[in-house]
Amino acid sequence: MTETLGAGSTIGILGGGQLGRMLSVAAARLGYRCHIYDPAPLPPAGHVAEKVVTAAWDDLRALQQFAASVDVITFEFENIPAATLDLLEPVCPIRPGRQALAVSQDRLTEKDFLRDLGLQTAPYAAVDTADELDAALLDIGTPSILKTRRLGYDGKGQARLQGAQDAAAAWDAMQGAPAILEGFVTFSHEVSVIAARGLSGEVAAYDPGENLHRDGILRETRVPARLTAAQRSDAVLMAARILNALDYVGVLGVELFVTAQGLVVNEIAPRVHNSGHWTQNGCAVDQFEQHIRAVVGLPLGDGGRYADVVMENLIGDDMDRVPDLMKARDVALHLYGKPERRAGRKMGHVNHIQRPKS
Amino acid sequence: MTETLGAGSTIGILGGGQLGRMLSVAAARLGYRCHIYDPAPLPPAGHVAEKVVTAAWDDLRALQQFAASVDVITFEFENIPAATLDLLEPVCPIRPGRQALAVSQDRLTEKDFLRDLGLQTAPYAAVDTADELDAALLDIGTPSILKTRRLGYDGKGQARLQGAQDAAAAWDAMQGAPAILEGFVTFSHEVSVIAARGLSGEVAAYDPGENLHRDGILRETRVPARLTAAQRSDAVLMAARILNALDYVGVLGVELFVTAQGLVVNEIAPRVHNSGHWTQNGCAVDQFEQHIRAVVGLPLGDGGRYADVVMENLIGDDMDRVPDLMKARDVALHLYGKPERRAGRKMGHVNHIQRPKS
Repeated sequence: MTETLGAGSTIGILGGGQLGRMLSVAAARLGYRCHIYDPAPLPPAGHVAEKVVTAAWDDLRALQQFAASVDVITFEFENIPAATLDLLEPVCPIRPGRQALAVSQDRLTEKDFLRDLGLQTAPYAAVDTADELDAALLDIGTPSILKTRRLGYDGKGQARLQGAQDAAAAWDAMQGAPAILEGFVTFSHEVSVIAARGLSGEVAAYDPGENLHRDGILRETRVPARLTAAQRSDAVLMAARILNALDYVGVLGVELFVTAQGLVVNEIAPRVHNSGHWTQNGCAVDQFEQHIRAVVGLPLGDGGRYADVVMENLIGDDMDRVPDLMKARDVALHLYGKPERRAGRKMGHVNHIQRPKS
Repeated sequence: MTETLGAGSTIGILGGGQLGRMLSVAAARLGYRCHIYDPAPLPPAGHVAEKVVTAAWDDLRALQQFAASVDVITFEFENIPAATLDLLEPVCPIRPGRQALAVSQDRLTEKDFLRDLGLQTAPYAAVDTADELDAALLDIGTPSILKTRRLGYDGKGQARLQGAQDAAAAWDAMQGAPAILEGFVTFSHEVSVIAARGLSGEVAAYDPGENLHRDGILRETRVPARLTAAQRSDAVLMAARILNALDYVGVLGVELFVTAQGLVVNEIAPRVHNSGHWTQNGCAVDQFEQHIRAVVGLPLGDGGRYADVVMENLIGDDMDRVPDLMKARDVALHLYGKPERRAGRKMGHVNHIQRPKS
């Protein structure tokens, strides 16, 4: 079952954004080649990949050719259409597998899955009609948030409810899509665990990082996070439980709220994760290499950290700070080569390396 | 004079081996694209570059097209034919410039250059005929080593002399090429300084590393090197003197012998250097990014080190150790994706990160 793809093999990556780009570089560092599949022309990953295929997610011919030209397929984002996966899967193994995607593509399925594993989540209820929203509000109360079950990203497809009077507008905002009402969780801060599971089932995790969001977008991840030793090991064990339940292969991100009642899962992402970028400068094996190792069947790195790091995203006009950041001490720059700057667009990140006090 | 090439510009790299490959990755990390020019098909750098041109060093048309398609040209090795540079230079700036190449392509010119700068070298004499070899031997004595002035690499084109009786055979080994006789230097160990000079003339250096060779090939570089504070600053100042004298732009490697009479220059390499690979895991800005910053006119990183590192080359059958190295703690792998393993061939390197004692 643990058949390793040798160096020189080709990894197909669905999606050529910054995550695909950094996966491609990590693959090269181990002697693997990457082909990128992306509907958008000139994706950021294209500069560092052996080949780029520009074609739509429903381009039967392009998908089949792509699958036939690579040895394993992975992805940089979770919202790949199921029909696309249906076309690829008979031709080439996809790692992580369909189950992880099915769970994470649907907020309700994900919450049910987590609850069935015995993990805490925010209170939630399925909402398919305006009437169901009224019923769910009685149960969960306000403030709460109504989200479409599928295809949500960085705060899109969501409506906040301060009271029952907001129900009609919130339901309208869903435009008829199946939704989920989530209650709020009182938490002191958010952390995330970046963990990996190899083809032979071994699990490795990085130390949790502490996340700071602004306007629904991750701004900063600090490692180590403010956690007790017990919370730290809880966080890692929760990630391992999720990985094993999904028979997962690759890197997974788990966002957790730290509450007085323990750790509550916010969401999971079946891919390398923005909050794991600090590993590029804090660990011998970063999250991108760890993911590549997993999907080609190599042994995982142990996740050990040799430097503390504050990762900061460069979003939109943050790019104006790049000249100063270039001159700063112990600052590692990672720019994504995106030609156009836009408000809210992730253009790069920096890792501020924290030197040990001497 | 310090015109910066903006992100999205294209850097042309002459040579697509492992150094070109790691330069290409570093360029991508800052948002630049790379085109590789190499006579050999499927060069290692090809997996991570936007474009690869496979053409000979004397292919007029290919060289001119290449130069016209990029914004600046740099190189990963010093033995590029002068005629090639003659074709490229009118079309596109080459950094570092011709003077650095002229000096380092000829062992005699290099030694004269260093001596004129007031730096110590091994004793040497020009040898163009068998008679001149006899005369040089009287001056320099034995043991000594006769080397062709041009195109030497990893111990090729060299003959050792244990006594005057070896003169005829040594001269024959040169096959009529102009040569240089070098005396031996008694040294305790070898170190190298990796230093950089920016387009506006600023200089930055990394801490010197200590090199261990076997069979004429670098095996290991350890940082920090065994040096006194005075030796360390001497080494860095010597590198700076060389950089300034050459009006250099980019990263340069300087190999130094540590002797009772001070530091003696062994040789200089006008490019990123194998003994600087440790910077990938010890510094926020590694030697590859530093070189890219210099050639596009960005400010240099300060060279600060946040972790001690032992860099070990993986040569030929050392690759058998990769599975074990993958499981080791704090070991960062860098494999070059070369399809064929050969004795003496550099296949990759590992950085053993030295954790601070806690």
